[in-house]
Amino acid sequence: MAATTSSYSITMRLHTAPDHGVVGAVATTIASAGGIVTAIDVAESSHERLVVDVTCSASDADHASELEAAVSQVSGVEVYKVSDRTFLLHIGGKIEVTSKVPLRNRDDLSMAYTPGVGRVSMALAENPEDIPRLTVKGNSVAVVTDGSAVLGLGNIGPGAALPVMEGKAALFKRFANIDAWPICLASQDTDEIVRAVEMIAPGFGGINLEDIAAPRCFEIERRLRESLDIPVFHDDQHGTAIVVLAALTNALRVVRKSLTTVRVVVSGGGAAGTAIVTLLIAAGVTDVVVVDRSGALAAGDPALSPAHEELASVTNPRGVTGDLHAVLVGADVFIGVSAPGVLKAEWIADMAPDAVVFALANPDPEVDPAEADRYAAVVASGRSDYPNQINNVLAFPGVFRGLLDARAHEVSIDMLLRAADAIAHVVKDEELNPNFIIPTVFHPDVPKAVAAAIRGE
Amino acid sequence: MAATTSSYSITMRLHTAPDHGVVGAVATTIASAGGIVTAIDVAESSHERLVVDVTCSASDADHASELEAAVSQVSGVEVYKVSDRTFLLHIGGKIEVTSKVPLRNRDDLSMAYTPGVGRVSMALAENPEDIPRLTVKGNSVAVVTDGSAVLGLGNIGPGAALPVMEGKAALFKRFANIDAWPICLASQDTDEIVRAVEMIAPGFGGINLEDIAAPRCFEIERRLRESLDIPVFHDDQHGTAIVVLAALTNALRVVRKSLTTVRVVVSGGGAAGTAIVTLLIAAGVTDVVVVDRSGALAAGDPALSPAHEELASVTNPRGVTGDLHAVLVGADVFIGVSAPGVLKAEWIADMAPDAVVFALANPDPEVDPAEADRYAAVVASGRSDYPNQINNVLAFPGVFRGLLDARAHEVSIDMLLRAADAIAHVVKDEELNPNFIIPTVFHPDVPKAVAAAIRGE
Repeated sequence: MAATTSSYSITMRLHTAPDHGVVGAVATTIASAGGIVTAIDVAESSHERLVVDVTCSASDADHASELEAAVSQVSGVEVYKVSDRTFLLHIGGKIEVTSKVPLRNRDDLSMAYTPGVGRVSMALAENPEDIPRLTVKGNSVAVVTDGSAVLGLGNIGPGAALPVMEGKAALFKRFANIDAWPICLASQDTDEIVRAVEMIAPGFGGINLEDIAAPRCFEIERRLRESLDIPVFHDDQHGTAIVVLAALTNALRVVRKSLTTVRVVVSGGGAAGTAIVTLLIAAGVTDVVVVDRSGALAAGDPALSPAHEELASVTNPRGVTGDLHAVLVGADVFIGVSAPGVLKAEWIADMAPDAVVFALANPDPEVDPAEADRYAAVVASGRSDYPNQINNVLAFPGVFRGLLDARAHEVSIDMLLRAADAIAHVVKDEELNPNFIIPTVFHPDVPKAVAAAIRGE
Repeated sequence: MAATTSSYSITMRLHTAPDHGVVGAVATTIASAGGIVTAIDVAESSHERLVVDVTCSASDADHASELEAAVSQVSGVEVYKVSDRTFLLHIGGKIEVTSKVPLRNRDDLSMAYTPGVGRVSMALAENPEDIPRLTVKGNSVAVVTDGSAVLGLGNIGPGAALPVMEGKAALFKRFANIDAWPICLASQDTDEIVRAVEMIAPGFGGINLEDIAAPRCFEIERRLRESLDIPVFHDDQHGTAIVVLAALTNALRVVRKSLTTVRVVVSGGGAAGTAIVTLLIAAGVTDVVVVDRSGALAAGDPALSPAHEELASVTNPRGVTGDLHAVLVGADVFIGVSAPGVLKAEWIADMAPDAVVFALANPDPEVDPAEADRYAAVVASGRSDYPNQINNVLAFPGVFRGLLDARAHEVSIDMLLRAADAIAHVVKDEELNPNFIIPTVFHPDVPKAVAAAIRGE
């Protein structure tokens, strides 16, 4: 059974017989069924009955249903209502717009709005370079999606993607004091997306593309970078690549191997895989092979899509072919950004000694991290319930903080390399070990170090 | 000299001789020059010198310069630096995005972001009708402009318009707890604007169009109302119309005339004028004549633009012609949404007895309100330094509060009529008088009353 997490935390409102012993029986029942009780509140107590709110964590939705069923079997207990804490948290949305200026009286109004604001607007019409300094543009990022590749959920559309984009906006504020706003676009047409982002760009200091399907995302990013004078950053690509490179840098410190000589296998040739390969090569990796559903990508294969042809042309120097298992033989590093379960743990034994395995498919990785740990020297995943979580939250807040601070017009690959290096070096030599190659997202130095690296300090 | 306002408030940092008498001389000098000292802070005091921050209000930019010049003439005073409080207030922007949910630890993160948020997104993909309830969409409004008709400043473009849109967003929060975000569009093409707004609509519960030039604004609003399932409201049109109708309702209560029998002259056939005419007719006004630069609009005039032809077809029942002065003879009500100074105060004497004059051009009205007051029974303007300020802030926050509360898909003319009536009736019979026909924007009942009216309660 997977670990319990708060994302599956539920609160059951129980009506019970007026016997406090029943509450103990409920707690025991939940524990026996694998749940973790985090709070018990008696909401009402009378001679007739008790009303008790029991909050507990489950491993997933099915497990939550099992807990509810188990509790309803306890003698003298009626499950009156089950609330899901994650859904409760989302009621009314997760972000809000607040005023930074007082609006108490007419004088306040006449400065923040008409007539005073008119002078500021006139000054900006004359000196557009002051716009970032005197407006929210200097600190704002649009989190733009078309809802076509949301988390591991696929093409759920812009409306259903909104909670994810709001969450991202909340993280931008929490970790880098950036004012981010979700822009969920009602089209999945490349031209329309590009034009919509160009249209809204005047009000933002940066564009964070999010959860847009490949290969569309490549063209959208490329065209926006050409047309806009603010930085454009597709987090699923470059955020992931930065954190992977940071983690790999430290994993190789642990196993005492060099980036320039290791053999790397990347499973998955989508947005993340492509960006990881590009950044690894820029960092000095010389031998990387991308494996997709149909096997290793090799130059000259007429079956390849244009995007994969490009990828093949810069990778696979030894021209290897075959499936993932074949390609893994003798490799030093496996990086999975593909699909659950594609890596059999025992294949790791065929890799070079001191293998490094990053299984990043979400929410279910390419290989169970605990299984992989039996064969590999260092294992990382996207999961928060194992050591070494590869989490984009380590990168994007600091990246945009640095870009906004510098009033940058674009994002360079050097910036990405410096950001990865900054994250890696938050882990001190004496802290580094196979279970600690990457700092926690709550490490207060991370966003600052990343921002400084982006600014080139 | 116009009244002093905080929108021209400046802070002068003075270096003076170490003689506190100098400070008194500075205060006297400012007062003599027509400025109002609002704060004097001694920032530094030594044997060699004093550093003194003097904050004062001026009537406009020229007056502020005069005050600075006057102070620099005071013996023993050096004006070290002049800061403009309105500009200081704008540094870093006026709005921010904040998280409504705690993000203290991994558990918080796993509910607000991955993996927990994935379940919310999946639920919304299955039940899109829940999107407003579980996301910010239920409480958010896009404040959309193309920067083509900003305040009285004209076509200053989307970047320079941003401070105005931010101010509007801040007012949305202040007066109706709405999360509004400025969307400043980099195009003034009707088709592009329509498409951009359609594209971003999934993330918003309403669209507030702002400062878009006529006649483009009419088509944009019409097309968006057809294509979107969220309400679209052009504040310069309908917000103004609501407040004008509210003020007119009460002005006619004061002079004991009836909406259905008064003769109304509207100066200005742009966005505001058109919307005012439409709402007045819906409210029962039967005799309204629109006057533009070239005189009264009359049906059948081949020189009219399509928009003015439409306007003429529903107005001017007596088929009057001629310039503003001619048309005003015998009229009961003048409503100016045109240009500074087009109404000579003495023409009001040619209107019917107990004339009502609304001179709403901003920042300089069609006639000086004090001058108009010599001839008219009731005078209103857009200015905060005269009684009876016609201010859109009275309408738009409550309008959108009501629309969002009701999860409305559109705005009807009945809603606008009810909103106007609600604002009018915040002024109680015993409060009503020629200098108090409209409540202050800070009256706490206004947004609630408007929202209830919009909801149809």
